[in-house]
Formats: sequence, C-alpha cells, structure tokens
Amino acid sequence: MDLYQAVISELEKAPGVTILIHKSPDGDAIGSALALALVLEARGKETAIYCWDGVPYYYRFLPGWQRVRKVKEEGEVVFHPLVVGLDSSDLGRLPFLRDKPPGTVINIDHHPTNTRWGDLNLVEPQASATGEIVFGLLERWEVEITPHVATALYTAIFTDTGGFRFSNTTDTSLLCCYKLVDLGAVPYEIATNVYESYSSGRMRLLGLALGTLSMAAGGGVAWVVVTREMMETTGTGPEDTEEFVNFPKSIRGVEVALLFRETEEGVKVSFRSKGRVDVAAIAASLGGGGHKAAAGCDLDLSLDAAVERVIPLVEEALSCCLSSTCS
Amino acid sequence: MDLYQAVISELEKAPGVTILIHKSPDGDAIGSALALALVLEARGKETAIYCWDGVPYYYRFLPGWQRVRKVKEEGEVVFHPLVVGLDSSDLGRLPFLRDKPPGTVINIDHHPTNTRWGDLNLVEPQASATGEIVFGLLERWEVEITPHVATALYTAIFTDTGGFRFSNTTDTSLLCCYKLVDLGAVPYEIATNVYESYSSGRMRLLGLALGTLSMAAGGGVAWVVVTREMMETTGTGPEDTEEFVNFPKSIRGVEVALLFRETEEGVKVSFRSKGRVDVAAIAASLGGGGHKAAAGCDLDLSLDAAVERVIPLVEEALSCCLSSTCS
Repeated sequence: MDLYQAVISELEKAPGVTILIHKSPDGDAIGSALALALVLEARGKETAIYCWDGVPYYYRFLPGWQRVRKVKEEGEVVFHPLVVGLDSSDLGRLPFLRDKPPGTVINIDHHPTNTRWGDLNLVEPQASATGEIVFGLLERWEVEITPHVATALYTAIFTDTGGFRFSNTTDTSLLCCYKLVDLGAVPYEIATNVYESYSSGRMRLLGLALGTLSMAAGGGVAWVVVTREMMETTGTGPEDTEEFVNFPKSIRGVEVALLFRETEEGVKVSFRSKGRVDVAAIAASLGGGGHKAAAGCDLDLSLDAAVERVIPLVEEALSCCLSSTCS
Repeated sequence: MDLYQAVISELEKAPGVTILIHKSPDGDAIGSALALALVLEARGKETAIYCWDGVPYYYRFLPGWQRVRKVKEEGEVVFHPLVVGLDSSDLGRLPFLRDKPPGTVINIDHHPTNTRWGDLNLVEPQASATGEIVFGLLERWEVEITPHVATALYTAIFTDTGGFRFSNTTDTSLLCCYKLVDLGAVPYEIATNVYESYSSGRMRLLGLALGTLSMAAGGGVAWVVVTREMMETTGTGPEDTEEFVNFPKSIRGVEVALLFRETEEGVKVSFRSKGRVDVAAIAASLGGGGHKAAAGCDLDLSLDAAVERVIPLVEEALSCCLSSTCS
C-alpha cells in the first residue's frame, strides 16, 4: 500500500489521535498540527496536541491555537492509540518523552535529517514545509478543507519558506498556497499577524542585537548575539528572537549568518546559509541538526566561547566551498 | 474584438515598440517592461524602454535591466509607431512627455486611478500588479515565456504584493507565480536580490535607529529617529533608511508609525498608517503630501522640535478616529 494511503487508513480507524510537535514550535509545526486536529475533530475523533513550549504570541491568531498544550513530563500526556509526530526530526525534539511513544506512531516531517523514529515515516525532504505534506495528505484523503484548516496550512508553508523567500520555496509551495487561498486563507491577514504583531520590546531587542553585528571571512560570515540580560532589559523571551538571524543574512556578500542566543544552559546557535555552505553539516558536527540552509545546535558554553568555537568552523567550511576543493 | 486580442494584434503588426514606465520605477514597472521587451525582441521587433529615473541597484539583477534608458527630455525618446505605457496611472508619471505620445498608444496598468490616457486601455484594477496583466497577455498571445521573461514577471508580482504580504495578494497572484516558477523563475534568487542586498552599515544604522524607539497614545503611535551622526558613524546615506519606518509599524497595536531623519536643512518625516488615520492630511498640514497610508514632509526644525511639533498632531488625529467623531 502507498505510504499516504497507509497513513490515511490509520487516521481513519483511530478513535483518537495524539499529536506531538517539536519544542520551540514554529508556524509549520503549529499550523500542521492544528490543520490535522481540526480535520480529525470534524470526523468525530478526539485529539490532543502537545509541545514542550507554548505557542508564540504571533501564532495566537491561528484558529484553535489553544489546543496546543505545554507539557514537561510524559505523565501529563494523554496517549490515544494513534500518535502523530509533526515536523520533528528526532525524539530529542520532543523532550517530554522518555522513549518512543506507545501505540502506533506516524512520523510526518520534511527534515532530511529525520531519523525515521515512527512506525510509519511520511518523510518528504523535498517538501518546503511539513504543512505541504499534510496538505497533500488531506487532498488524497478527500476530506473537507475548511477556511480554518486552509489558514493553518497556509501559515505553515508561508512561514517555513520565510514568506516564499528561502531556497526551499518551490512551484509546489506556491501551488499549494494558491489552492489554500481558494479554500479561504487570506494572505494579507496571515502576513500581518505573523510579521506585524511584534511587541515594542522585540523591536528594542532587535536594536540591541544589531548593535553586536560582527563579520568574518571578508564579509562572508556575519552574526549577532542576544544575551539573557538583553532579554531581561527589554522584557522579551526566546520567541522574540525567531527572525533575528535573517538580518545578518540580508547583508550583501554574506554566505552564512548566525544568531548566538544565551540560554539557561548555555548557548543556542542558529545557522542560515545562502546555499553554498551546508550548515546542517556544521550543526551536526556540534551535536545539532537541520537543513542545508537552516540549522541549529545547543552548546554548553559561554557566549564568547561559543562564538570562538563555531565561527572558525564556519570560516573553514566557507573557504572550502569557495576554493571548490570540497565536494 | 476582445481588448487583449486588440492589444496582441497591435503588438503583432508593429515593427518596433517604445515602452514607457513611471518615474521612481519599482519592480512591477521594470519587470513588466523587460518581460514585454524580451518577448518583442524574440519576435524580431525593435524595442526601447524609457524612464525618468534610473534602475535602483537592487533591480540590476534583472535580465536586460540596462535596456531601461533614463530620459529627462521628450526629444531624447525614439518613438516607434506603437507606444506602450506600463504601470503608469497618468501622464504626470512620465514627466519627460510634453503630451500624449505620438502613434498608437497602449496603456497597461492596474491602478484604479488610471486616467485611461491611451488609445487602448488595458486597465485591470483587480490585478495585484501590472506584471500579472502582462503575463495574462503573453499567455493569451501564446508566445514563448523564457526563464528571463519569467524572472522579470515574477519580480513584478512579488515586489508589488510586498512579497505576497500586502492586501492586494490574491489567489491569482500566487497562481501566476506558480506558473512563472515552472517557467524558470527562481523565488529564492529573486527574493535574495531584492531583499537581501543590504550593506552591513545599513544593519548597524537600523540597530541605532531601533534604539530610539518611542511610543505615544497608549501604544497607537511609534517612531524612530535617525541622526546625521548615526549615518556618519555607520557610513550610510538617506537611501539606507528607506524601509525603517516599517519597523515601528510592525508593532502590534500601532496605528501610525513615523521616521524622523535629520537632513542638512532640518528633518524629513515619513508617516505610515495601518488604515484608520489619514496621514496624508497630517503631512499636508505641515507642507508635505502623499497617500492616506504613506506620506511625508520636510520641516525646518531640529530633531527634538520636529518630534514635539508632529507627535501631538498624530495623537490628535488618532484620538479623533478612535472616538469616531471624525468622518
């Protein structure tokens, strides 16, 4: 049986479905989860969505966002016989789990680094977003796609392609979004909610972060830093830094951009590449993961030590690519 | 005969075509003109494109951008028997013309205020961009749309919808862009050229500007300030501040955003409204002008005095709108 049909068959027969999305949830994880939950509920099934973190405020316009429950312990999770993980490349992205969840597990994701941790693994690395895969699933299933579902899926694809600006944007991303607008998604409303609903603190934090702008490799590498103190001063949290790495990236000549964010445990590093450098490989060498063009890792280091550790690796990878001695 | 067919018939029979685009040309004007010129040239016709201003640096990746000639006098224009005006709502947008051009004139535009100044007026106000109309024309004409033509048209639609973020974004905008990607446009490359070609100084300047963020009217008004010293420190110029007013605008709850930029003569004020307040009226009362949602004025004052002069006017206009005692 075709993998999509196998997933549909499991969804059809389950009386209830537990949906799990990755920590630091983004628009793709949240939008995909809400779309699936709304469709399942319309078919009389119980659903429960769990995440390590809460929904960032700029995604709280999404219909049904309150369904996403923040959990820190596996004991708090209600496991239905069918569990669907969305946009989560490995179990480490679901830190409230002690191990693979009980029951039948479906893993739907577009990350090429996905570890195939489910019983059924609907992993499509060529998809621009997990929302694109979920949309394809719903089209094959021939279920009703309401304006609420369309809004959730449009948001998933729109945000995971950086508003159709990242290199993962394809004809399929645009075709899906065309169809989703026909089904009731409103591009302007979604864009305004996602990109024009910032707090004033977030703007001040962005100003402080841009004040730390540093460059290396003759302008090929650029990064900014966010300290815990900056977040305290501006009354902001980690979710406010989500787009910051795109600012150093938008400088002409930059090939790799980074954001170093101080956490309670150390430093979270976000990498963005304009295409030449595979930042997933660098992140993986530091215990992280992601895509060639967008990756991340957590380091148990001070901010200064993290910068000293990471930047030489990026410089080396870039110089290797520019001299075309690497594959 | 259908209007599109009438336009195609004129294009078919003309040995050469003069294309005119509006002053301060944007991606839609330039992209539409280049697409049309490339198609006409492939069919053995001579073309010439004219504009009052030159092509901004961030559109110089477009194939054939050098075809756009900057003219200040009608005498410099080579008029072919067929003239096509693109994205130009009235003759005032083509200041090098003394009057309606000679020969047959086709006016292709999507502005609802278009004055129908051509012999054939292909004006479609529901189109998100003039590029969308040109694409529809080329599809009906059944000419070959090369990757270069597709890139020009994608850029036209992508930029005129603010990257699919403005309220003019429709299902048709997305459907056209889906088709254009299939024809060879590369979304990421276009987005990178248009939105990721900043200088590092511009980023530092943005950081300094955001450090001045101020708010009034309970969060309904927000503004940032750029001093001449900031520009000197960062090695930047006025053109680097072009998008800055959108940062205070993107704060939740803000109805009017402003940028105060120190000039040699005083202060240039840029106003943006989310729709409720008519900022053109405020700017006009200060000797400036613009549209309801985007306006500006020059003040012969110090920065502090300019802020003290302007903000109370904006607060008053906003409070008037919110109490709905004004029309």
